[in-house]
Amino acid sequence: MFESAELGHKIDKETYKQAVPQLRADLLDVQYDLKEQGKIPVIVLVSGQDGAGKGETINILYEWMDPRFISTLAFSAPTDEERLRPFMWRYWRALPPKGRIGVFAGSWYSSPIHDRLDGGMTKAAMDARIDQINRFEAMLVNEGALVLKFWFHLTKDGQKRRLKALEKDPKTAWRVTKWNWDRLKTYDKLQDVVGHVLRMTNTPWAPWTIIEGEDDRYRSLTTGKILLEAIRQRLAHPEKQFTPVAPPSRPNIDGRDVLSELKLNRKPITKADYETQLAKWQGKLSELVRDPRFKNHSVLCAFEGSDAAGKGGTIRRIVSALDARDYQVVPVAAPTEEERAQPYLWRFWRHIPRTGRVTIFDRTWYGRVLVERVEGYCAEADWLRAYSEINDFEHDLSDSGVIVIKFWLQISKDEQLKRFKEREKIEFKQFKITEEDWRNREKWDAYHEAVCDMVDRTSTGNAPWTIVEANDKNFARVKVLRTICERLEAALDAKPGAEGVAAAEKPKKKKD
Amino acid sequence: MFESAELGHKIDKETYKQAVPQLRADLLDVQYDLKEQGKIPVIVLVSGQDGAGKGETINILYEWMDPRFISTLAFSAPTDEERLRPFMWRYWRALPPKGRIGVFAGSWYSSPIHDRLDGGMTKAAMDARIDQINRFEAMLVNEGALVLKFWFHLTKDGQKRRLKALEKDPKTAWRVTKWNWDRLKTYDKLQDVVGHVLRMTNTPWAPWTIIEGEDDRYRSLTTGKILLEAIRQRLAHPEKQFTPVAPPSRPNIDGRDVLSELKLNRKPITKADYETQLAKWQGKLSELVRDPRFKNHSVLCAFEGSDAAGKGGTIRRIVSALDARDYQVVPVAAPTEEERAQPYLWRFWRHIPRTGRVTIFDRTWYGRVLVERVEGYCAEADWLRAYSEINDFEHDLSDSGVIVIKFWLQISKDEQLKRFKEREKIEFKQFKITEEDWRNREKWDAYHEAVCDMVDRTSTGNAPWTIVEANDKNFARVKVLRTICERLEAALDAKPGAEGVAAAEKPKKKKD
Repeated sequence: MFESAELGHKIDKETYKQAVPQLRADLLDVQYDLKEQGKIPVIVLVSGQDGAGKGETINILYEWMDPRFISTLAFSAPTDEERLRPFMWRYWRALPPKGRIGVFAGSWYSSPIHDRLDGGMTKAAMDARIDQINRFEAMLVNEGALVLKFWFHLTKDGQKRRLKALEKDPKTAWRVTKWNWDRLKTYDKLQDVVGHVLRMTNTPWAPWTIIEGEDDRYRSLTTGKILLEAIRQRLAHPEKQFTPVAPPSRPNIDGRDVLSELKLNRKPITKADYETQLAKWQGKLSELVRDPRFKNHSVLCAFEGSDAAGKGGTIRRIVSALDARDYQVVPVAAPTEEERAQPYLWRFWRHIPRTGRVTIFDRTWYGRVLVERVEGYCAEADWLRAYSEINDFEHDLSDSGVIVIKFWLQISKDEQLKRFKEREKIEFKQFKITEEDWRNREKWDAYHEAVCDMVDRTSTGNAPWTIVEANDKNFARVKVLRTICERLEAALDAKPGAEGVAAAEKPKKKKD
Repeated sequence: MFESAELGHKIDKETYKQAVPQLRADLLDVQYDLKEQGKIPVIVLVSGQDGAGKGETINILYEWMDPRFISTLAFSAPTDEERLRPFMWRYWRALPPKGRIGVFAGSWYSSPIHDRLDGGMTKAAMDARIDQINRFEAMLVNEGALVLKFWFHLTKDGQKRRLKALEKDPKTAWRVTKWNWDRLKTYDKLQDVVGHVLRMTNTPWAPWTIIEGEDDRYRSLTTGKILLEAIRQRLAHPEKQFTPVAPPSRPNIDGRDVLSELKLNRKPITKADYETQLAKWQGKLSELVRDPRFKNHSVLCAFEGSDAAGKGGTIRRIVSALDARDYQVVPVAAPTEEERAQPYLWRFWRHIPRTGRVTIFDRTWYGRVLVERVEGYCAEADWLRAYSEINDFEHDLSDSGVIVIKFWLQISKDEQLKRFKEREKIEFKQFKITEEDWRNREKWDAYHEAVCDMVDRTSTGNAPWTIVEANDKNFARVKVLRTICERLEAALDAKPGAEGVAAAEKPKKKKD
């Protein structure tokens, strides 16, 4: 979920200076259109880590836009008046009217996150509040509002650097308190809680946008552009918008994303090293699935990747460490007639392993947001809602003790060409290369974008994506095996009840 | 919520025999159309109290329809295979394919309700499960399914009668076990839990229908007609249906509903009796709001009713028992310009009382499902979603300790005419009668239907409707005052944490 916001995005001064005037003019334009049309209130939630630039961003928005039609609403400790009324009262009071933009510094998310963090709220109470929030936001959207939710993210080191920088500057030193430094200590726990909340409230009608907060120029420009695009899109569809048009994607303003950052052409791992490592992790895996604690769990491995990235070979290295009675490999091709008559997740539910078993999917339910999206096999609204449905699906699984491990195997375009040509030459590999593979190759960029979106929207605490640099097959195989072992080990060691590792829920005897 | 299903509905043998052949023919027709079209799976959940006729209803549906395209899925204690997999797995396996009807005897609702009842599940865990269920059903509907949820209801006495009748008949005696009789003891608790679950899962995309279960003929005929209408409507709109067309209303097959059952022309209360009662309850009210425990609560009274039903006079009798500093009366007329620029609930949120205070709304947020529905001031989709938004709103309030007390004052059509004419005669009352009142009167039947729907869909455990027979003004005033006192007293005595009476939630200090 936070992967794309940990790449160290930066925008240089020159680029920034060139981009801002046009953005400002455009933002003013949409502001007037909004006012003129008078139908849509815009609700902007600005939230994120300490020092991630929430205040600065709000200031910039004020600077760029017409302050007459924008209002900022800051929420900290509730006043007496507020304390005596229901939790949501203060936020209702603050809603911007139609035609205006309300920027919320602190929102209905703040106190649940903090209460959860300091132990004042149970996970179940939190989930109930999350449900309440989702219904509230759905109501706002049904009433015509555009709801934009920003989360400014920092890595742990990034946060440390930001706090130090703020402290050093006499103009900003006052903003850093002991409380902020204390909060840094709970960074990991906060990330756990935030990851859960953001995932559960990342609805089609009010999706989150996570933006890296360290670089001021990158953060401001990205926020401004998303705001602009979202308002423009909404103005173009003035009817009520429960069914989403595309939620705002993070515009790629510096050309960097989770795939572009991969080091695909690293020095190959030596044959000897490969064999040692392979044996080590295969041995480890074999040991872990025989661990008595594994009897309450199962493993579900999901493999996706570029064509010819080596999924099959990698899967063979996993299963060769397992007893044939304990695993199942499910190759996913076009759905059967029986499967087409069911919701698209049905054909995956059928293969969910029982406890103590391993199931490996060679291609997965992510087809909906990859091939079906790129090829137009399903409507935009359908693949858009798939992100949260898939998250729900994987959440159900991990909640019941299933360890969900997802791999994207990535090769470079050159490497793919090389492998395609090889396959055409070697007779017993010819079946592996079809016209379709060549056609897919032409859509390289569309797939690239779909993969980045997929990782952003479905890499969660319970079910993160592991992106594997697969130009070197041996490296990829070792990385995959090691990741499986590490995830399995962590799950077996975990205590139930944490955000990331829910307790397995056992159905009890029941009657009806 | 259960009001309409406690009227003792009955259908006589002759009416039944005449209605069934056509219904069967129609049901077969839609079944074939469904099969032919091959796009929509129909998921029918049959649930309800013990002895309320779940099994009988399923048998009748089988008898009436073509069993080749219908399947029944009975869920009791999970099998070993099921126990080893996530909770939802068994239900996924059982989903009917497109073009077919799957009747679920027992469903994803059964075990949460039972676990909650026997204490194995906390309220918060239950709410989290409810959220999961709502998302699951939304996904089904988005995937094209028609989801129909029936709850067969019995009053406590009705359940006793049914169990005895079943026990007496040698053919059915085997079905009544000690377990059923034990369950009768927890009737009230079950009603509490069920009321909460049904309200929270009564979504626009998969609404509940509550049907009185005591009379076999009434239950079967009503279920069959709703099933028929819902499938017909869905077939007519084959595109995916997240936004609802009207959810199936309970067809009024015996002409009886919560308003028709009122005894409006009861013997008037004597003047002396009225004055004694009035003084008694006013005194009681005055005492209750000065009770120290009231400092954690507030009261919100909502008044709706026929025109000239006497809302104003009743409200004056309430406030005369209160200190002017402690209450506020909010008359609700057309929204101001400022209010129109906000979601429709905003103008009511502004007036939410702080703790220790009483707010009385003379006409309310129910305008959306009454006048706005009847006059067509808002789109059907908007007033349809309002039911659950209003329930959420009132739930938020009660969750924070607000005691929500709602009155519908009903007079007969004749009594209204009498009062209208009186008003026209008496000069100082002329302002009270306008052209609009006469126009509304012409829409008497449309309002009647809207009121019945409103009570069915928004009378909840925390915020029930009290329907007041108001032909006798004095009777009405006493009933209202007594109800307020009783609700207030119950709330002050209640322990937090139960379904009906959630703990007041205090916002804690927070930062962002």
